[in-house]
Amino acid sequence: MKNTNPPPESAPSADRILETALAFQASKTLLSAVEVGVFTELARKPADVHELRERLGLHPRGARDFFDALVALGFLRREDGVYHNTPESEAHLDRAKPGYGHVAPMLEMAGSRLFGIWNRLSDALRTGLSQDESKDRDEDTYDALYADPDRLRTFLSSMTGISHRANLRIARQVPWEDYTTMADMGTAQGDLAVQVLLANPGLSGTGFDLPQAEPVFTEYAERHGLTDRLGFTGGDFFTDPFPRADVLTFGHILHNWGLERKKVLLRKAWEALPQGGAVVVYDTLIDDDRSENAFALLMSLNMLAVTDGGFGYTGHECQEWMREAGFDRTWTEHLVGPDSIVVGVKE
Amino acid sequence: MKNTNPPPESAPSADRILETALAFQASKTLLSAVEVGVFTELARKPADVHELRERLGLHPRGARDFFDALVALGFLRREDGVYHNTPESEAHLDRAKPGYGHVAPMLEMAGSRLFGIWNRLSDALRTGLSQDESKDRDEDTYDALYADPDRLRTFLSSMTGISHRANLRIARQVPWEDYTTMADMGTAQGDLAVQVLLANPGLSGTGFDLPQAEPVFTEYAERHGLTDRLGFTGGDFFTDPFPRADVLTFGHILHNWGLERKKVLLRKAWEALPQGGAVVVYDTLIDDDRSENAFALLMSLNMLAVTDGGFGYTGHECQEWMREAGFDRTWTEHLVGPDSIVVGVKE
Repeated sequence: MKNTNPPPESAPSADRILETALAFQASKTLLSAVEVGVFTELARKPADVHELRERLGLHPRGARDFFDALVALGFLRREDGVYHNTPESEAHLDRAKPGYGHVAPMLEMAGSRLFGIWNRLSDALRTGLSQDESKDRDEDTYDALYADPDRLRTFLSSMTGISHRANLRIARQVPWEDYTTMADMGTAQGDLAVQVLLANPGLSGTGFDLPQAEPVFTEYAERHGLTDRLGFTGGDFFTDPFPRADVLTFGHILHNWGLERKKVLLRKAWEALPQGGAVVVYDTLIDDDRSENAFALLMSLNMLAVTDGGFGYTGHECQEWMREAGFDRTWTEHLVGPDSIVVGVKE
Repeated sequence: MKNTNPPPESAPSADRILETALAFQASKTLLSAVEVGVFTELARKPADVHELRERLGLHPRGARDFFDALVALGFLRREDGVYHNTPESEAHLDRAKPGYGHVAPMLEMAGSRLFGIWNRLSDALRTGLSQDESKDRDEDTYDALYADPDRLRTFLSSMTGISHRANLRIARQVPWEDYTTMADMGTAQGDLAVQVLLANPGLSGTGFDLPQAEPVFTEYAERHGLTDRLGFTGGDFFTDPFPRADVLTFGHILHNWGLERKKVLLRKAWEALPQGGAVVVYDTLIDDDRSENAFALLMSLNMLAVTDGGFGYTGHECQEWMREAGFDRTWTEHLVGPDSIVVGVKE
């Protein structure tokens, strides 16, 4: 009479399935904590459950569970009933500290925008269409974003946050001593150019982005004492000419666009570079076997869900596109974490 | 001129923050894979990217990234371009196998309902109100659920999935040899009663739930050859009398309700039990210090977001409510994973 339901004890455990399936709960708890300002309030002053709840304007029903979940997840600690930030949340999640700019703006964007878009992932997979339903969204994902100064500032600084560690590597890993000028295409706040110039005093450069990015870029360059060697060029890299430079860098840019636009950018780079010049593409590359870098593959699904044609790619694919664009020598190098660079030299 | 932005290399790493913050992407990828039927199709027949995509009705744009992300996450494997289930996904995520009933219905519910509700977690925290915006939702969360036979079957079997391991423990850990009858309150598919009776041949029992649950319960009892010792009692445990039994069990029930209703159930249990009888409450208990069992604290936030008054609780709290209801001797025992039981004896 008995069938195999429930499974024999020897069946593979479902623990990892359940853990992954429900991981969105811990994820959203942290994103909400950033959104409502838990870490910023506790950095101002540690507080017990009642005071913290009142300062944040939260309802009594869920507040204690919310704070204690953050304790159990390791993002807060509680001592004699008083909540404190951990060193990790204090350094990165307090809006009043400069460290907030590195990852928290990315978390704000994930909580306010990406999580809801990912809720429609199945629709994106069935239709191939972006699921970004923002009212102000039009043909070009970036037009709306760049039109709102607050959203733009958040977006640009979040780009610094997700690329800073890799930027530090690029500043040392590329043979910059062979060159005298560089231009960072889609520069955002400019952290890649800033790190490259800080590490290479003989180099001067420009950041290229839509004109609206200039104030944020200039402030960042000034803050790092680089205004004498680092300028800004406003423009649209699909319709305007590229700046002249020995090296053109594209950091987390190509994955935003469809295949044709990716190739247009690489071709324009080849045309703009002098002989001996190089293009340096840096992205969260999918591994060539497409079986290991989960972060990069999920980032590519993110591009499916939030852009009209964007997708991630492997180093091998990018080198093919570079050679098609005219580059003679190309290679891929791992940087740090999930990030790599692809280099193309015009000989 | 340089300020502390970007942070010194010695600052605590933000890796864990980013990992948790973005974990919703892996989560939703797995939930979508269950929804669109990836594992069921591959169990029928392994397939390459084109065939699998066509069989599932997915658009070419994201399909390969989707499948390869599942490879990188360890839920599929790919060999010479052909995708196969892993033993884990084959056992638990193929709709045609009985093992699907254990966790996958819970995943279906998470993907179709919970993920979207959790997107509004901040609103739940600010207002204390359920964020379940289902059109058919009315005063009582369970009325709508129980009115739709398909949703009900999925819900009831998902309850088996999340409690089966603990049910096997309860069947051995409670001194059932001291008793001759048991009633499982809010029994759903009946797995707790089934496991207790299978392990204790001297015992007979009844499953108590809303009348709509009877067909699903009876089928499950028959399948385990228990119809001679296991019956069903239909009713509403707030308005109808409790069945007579030496032991009353409440598995994953109390967390669905607000404090007053929790206490009503325990008081009614005390009144219905004979002298020497016991109530066994089993739930994903929050640890008494409220600082370790993240799963239980997140489950409590889930109750905030999906029910009108439900919340998780500690063993200590539950024992207090039991003593208030009249129970003389109470204790808490850990079961397995995040689950524990609280026992109250009427002496």
